[in-house]
Amino acid sequence: MARMIQIIGLEKIGLVANGDDIAQAIFAAASEDGVELWDGDVVVVSQKVVSKADGLEVDISRVKPSGRASALARRTGKDDRLMELVLGDTQSVLRADKQALIVQRKDGMICLNGGVDKSNVRGRHVYARLPVSSDVSANKIRVRLEKLSGRSLAVIVGDTFSRPLRVGQVEFAIGVSGMEPLADYRGLNDLFGYELRYKLVGLADEVAAAAELVMGQGTERTPVAILRGIPRVKRTQKLNLSRKLQLGRRKDLFHKIV
Amino acid sequence: MARMIQIIGLEKIGLVANGDDIAQAIFAAASEDGVELWDGDVVVVSQKVVSKADGLEVDISRVKPSGRASALARRTGKDDRLMELVLGDTQSVLRADKQALIVQRKDGMICLNGGVDKSNVRGRHVYARLPVSSDVSANKIRVRLEKLSGRSLAVIVGDTFSRPLRVGQVEFAIGVSGMEPLADYRGLNDLFGYELRYKLVGLADEVAAAAELVMGQGTERTPVAILRGIPRVKRTQKLNLSRKLQLGRRKDLFHKIV
Repeated sequence: MARMIQIIGLEKIGLVANGDDIAQAIFAAASEDGVELWDGDVVVVSQKVVSKADGLEVDISRVKPSGRASALARRTGKDDRLMELVLGDTQSVLRADKQALIVQRKDGMICLNGGVDKSNVRGRHVYARLPVSSDVSANKIRVRLEKLSGRSLAVIVGDTFSRPLRVGQVEFAIGVSGMEPLADYRGLNDLFGYELRYKLVGLADEVAAAAELVMGQGTERTPVAILRGIPRVKRTQKLNLSRKLQLGRRKDLFHKIV
Repeated sequence: MARMIQIIGLEKIGLVANGDDIAQAIFAAASEDGVELWDGDVVVVSQKVVSKADGLEVDISRVKPSGRASALARRTGKDDRLMELVLGDTQSVLRADKQALIVQRKDGMICLNGGVDKSNVRGRHVYARLPVSSDVSANKIRVRLEKLSGRSLAVIVGDTFSRPLRVGQVEFAIGVSGMEPLADYRGLNDLFGYELRYKLVGLADEVAAAAELVMGQGTERTPVAILRGIPRVKRTQKLNLSRKLQLGRRKDLFHKIV
């Protein structure tokens, strides 16, 4: 028999609102679809539903822009209230002009518009912020879903990111709980006994990307995917796991290359 | 029923040598595992086996380094014959010091060591170059595999890349045939009728990343994966498709940010 991984998309989650119990919604949606959770399953949850459950939808018509937000709005040509929202999550602004606003967030992620996003959010002036700590959110969902199901699970919060050097966005793991985010081959041998020196696989990012294949971006209504049968999922109880995927600019081999 | 994608790893390919018919090897390995190919399947093939079949294993003990290669070896601290090999595929050197050698290849890809790699290659001084055109190689495999199976397929050549801003390598699509590499949502509506303006998903990169979950990097002996049931796979007969995933440095929103 060939080795197989399954990516199962859950379409029965429904719309998520502030305060909703996502783990319960996932458990119910899986049951409704006749999907039982298994030990070792990795559950990928779209950032957007996590943000909604965490109460991070903001109507910017109620936001009062600061002077700094107004200045940023002039540089970017964007709404000053939106800039206020972005600045609230920002550690430092890396680029701000008419083409792009790129910041390093307080959680360390470097991304366009600080991750603040309009898509699949109800209300003309309503935007969603990223979870304050996606690792903490992932951990809460994992612990609760393990209790409901009686299974050992990992949970990844996935979000769509633009990347340097490549066209098109892909899903990254911005929150991780229950599994090591990296698969380390350093010191292991290859097929011919040669010692691998650099191979360190961004496993959690690959899992998030795989989940996006079934989740989509538009009207697919599939904010959760269960990935089953992934080798190399190494269980851990550590926290702040997504930080291991963040690369400091000074350590970055592509520093000043892009 | 929940929506499902399957990632099927083929472990019966065996070792590949110069001149081997990879499509035939894939077809035989699938049959041996009882896996029939279906219309719409995306077959991901590891770069390493494509390079081997394309005769791109090079014993550097037979390479004579040029003066330019010797100079590059002094800057990087690497073997001058290896540098000669890298320079043969290089359009321009972007970084060369003791920490890293990063080049833009003649095929446009920006990567460490020009993609020349030692892992899973037999022989102490033998390295593998990337395919001269991975799109052409992908296309040859697709056309032949479609003939053998009688099915409409897509083929992706996948290779493991280091990325700016993120720790850990992930699989990218360096060769694409038979499917649009990008899924374009621009102009489409989201759940609430809001028009998506920027969403353009690097679908082929996500497919490659998903395939790596079953293929691995070490002694897994699984150089081919079949991905089945992916929505958004849009058939095309166009060539040079992986170029659509390459972002010019001047167009890059992260230009000078990393």
